[in-house]
Amino acid sequence: MISQEKSSGTPSGAGTPRKKPPRPQPVTLREVAEAAGVSTATVSLVVNNKKAARISDETRKRVRDAIRNLGYRPNAMAQTLVSGSSRFIGLVADAIATTPFAGQIIHGAQDEAWKHGYALLIANTEGNSELETDAIAMMLEYKVRGILYSTWFHRATDIPASLREADFVLVNCFSTEPGARAVVPDEAQGGHSATEILLRHGHRRIAFINATIPAPARDGRLQGYREALEGAGIPFDEDLVLEAYPDQEGGYGATEDLLRLGATAVYCYNDRMAMGLYDGLREQGLSIPADMAVVGFDNQEVIAAHLRPPLSTVSLPHYELGAAGVRILLGLDEAPLQEAAKIYCPTIERTSVQALAPA
Amino acid sequence: MISQEKSSGTPSGAGTPRKKPPRPQPVTLREVAEAAGVSTATVSLVVNNKKAARISDETRKRVRDAIRNLGYRPNAMAQTLVSGSSRFIGLVADAIATTPFAGQIIHGAQDEAWKHGYALLIANTEGNSELETDAIAMMLEYKVRGILYSTWFHRATDIPASLREADFVLVNCFSTEPGARAVVPDEAQGGHSATEILLRHGHRRIAFINATIPAPARDGRLQGYREALEGAGIPFDEDLVLEAYPDQEGGYGATEDLLRLGATAVYCYNDRMAMGLYDGLREQGLSIPADMAVVGFDNQEVIAAHLRPPLSTVSLPHYELGAAGVRILLGLDEAPLQEAAKIYCPTIERTSVQALAPA
Repeated sequence: MISQEKSSGTPSGAGTPRKKPPRPQPVTLREVAEAAGVSTATVSLVVNNKKAARISDETRKRVRDAIRNLGYRPNAMAQTLVSGSSRFIGLVADAIATTPFAGQIIHGAQDEAWKHGYALLIANTEGNSELETDAIAMMLEYKVRGILYSTWFHRATDIPASLREADFVLVNCFSTEPGARAVVPDEAQGGHSATEILLRHGHRRIAFINATIPAPARDGRLQGYREALEGAGIPFDEDLVLEAYPDQEGGYGATEDLLRLGATAVYCYNDRMAMGLYDGLREQGLSIPADMAVVGFDNQEVIAAHLRPPLSTVSLPHYELGAAGVRILLGLDEAPLQEAAKIYCPTIERTSVQALAPA
Repeated sequence: MISQEKSSGTPSGAGTPRKKPPRPQPVTLREVAEAAGVSTATVSLVVNNKKAARISDETRKRVRDAIRNLGYRPNAMAQTLVSGSSRFIGLVADAIATTPFAGQIIHGAQDEAWKHGYALLIANTEGNSELETDAIAMMLEYKVRGILYSTWFHRATDIPASLREADFVLVNCFSTEPGARAVVPDEAQGGHSATEILLRHGHRRIAFINATIPAPARDGRLQGYREALEGAGIPFDEDLVLEAYPDQEGGYGATEDLLRLGATAVYCYNDRMAMGLYDGLREQGLSIPADMAVVGFDNQEVIAAHLRPPLSTVSLPHYELGAAGVRILLGLDEAPLQEAAKIYCPTIERTSVQALAPA
């Protein structure tokens, strides 16, 4: 093991005053061995957790105490060479920087990985396929235990060739290829839950502003809306389904069409559309929830809780997607073989919905 | 080098049908050597880039071709053992999951790291100090080249003891300790730029809604506001400075006080406050920018561009903070010794400001 200092600093013995405080010299295996009164080979066996080696519990304890007291850092790279795979799990994400969603996938994956003694090695590709190839190659070279391949919005994906060299789980995306393990949000259940909020408050004529962009979320959320209505004995009426681009401008632009429908409540494909619709309704002199109850989808941090009034919505389970991805990768959870595992989308109730006054 | 398969799959020679497609066996050093017609030692020297070794250019090329053709993955762990430090840079972040800002720091740091042949090893601590200690320990065990220690809002920080074992740069935070290299946003310049937008459109009576929470941003942005006014020959009037909690509810709540000041324009401490103020002004029947010009700060992705009207603001340079942190760590940029390096905050003009009509 090489223990030389990595920086270009002068040796700490030089004794001349320096602008930067000197970095402490790393503790060596030999120093641990001396402190514990054992051979370096014994320290190495304890560090590498060789259970089979004939070392007494008392000696193991003495070595561990010396490691702790001296602040020795075992060389994880050397341990990896011995074991053949590292304590890393790789996570490839296509949009850490441009959406708030990837952060929650990372958070969930990391918490779950740490729980099982793994660290997360994260690469941010921003959709650049060259960067993606390099990132996966780097992970393979560092002998990751496996790779989570994640996308910022729920969609079908191709499986990059190099990804097949590792154990992998698709997170927030899926492949039509049989056997590719994947975990995605349960969009239909989420759409069902969003509609349920409005039904529970007595609304019967409920509009849905869906997205114009084809996506599993668009199909699933519509399906859930439809099933919730039918479950409440309300026939599905396609005239109540509008479409708009899924951002604030789209929601704002749908205001007029919505008001023509005579609905008392509306479920928007996402929170950003709801935010735009709030502006549109206000410009018409209408009040939320008295004149129109509004429900969103996503529970987007800086929006949903801070609109006036705060928005009832359904949360995308990004944290749980990351955590479930790790559990599936490590074989702790079973993934269904024929389709992606589906994660529940929880309901968040705020004050943008109130009980419908009796007519 | 150990090349056994990591998964629990049956050996690929077994020939029985499996549910999951078998993962290809990793290519070994020996196979590369055979394909190139050289010894494994020669392949190893080429892989580890030993320039001094007496190997002809023609042989090097043959080995590299074989590596590419076979898809051989050199073991980065082994290379690290040889060189004493890895091609990793660590990044410790306190809020990847809960703010949109960390993503941009990561993006900038990663782009810059890749440019110089390093990969980023990211740990998300969510402010948990135990997790932070473990994360830094893990990075040290993997022999990172150095560590970027970042916070989601610009603030003073203590330096964790274990961080001192590595080369480190503080990103979006700083220490009062001499010699600790740091990179932060130039808050005073940002406040100056924000006020400038309003001055350029002819406004003279400009209010500032500052944050109630003590922070370098609060001091710096006020200083910039003051200097911009004085630069335009307008004496600073402390009555024009309000304070509120820096979120939508704070901005909304400041509406009445703002309207009492007779200002034609207001600069808000952040975009979230501006969003709340928009609601407050609208409820008073006032229009932006005709009745009140508004400028924010942060250029927060899902807010600033999507308000009605879109918000003029100053951008926090998170991407550049991450990139500059890497350059300072690698010694490519000099960091000032007595204070943090300051990064420019760019102006983003939208339509929430218009020229003041002549009185």
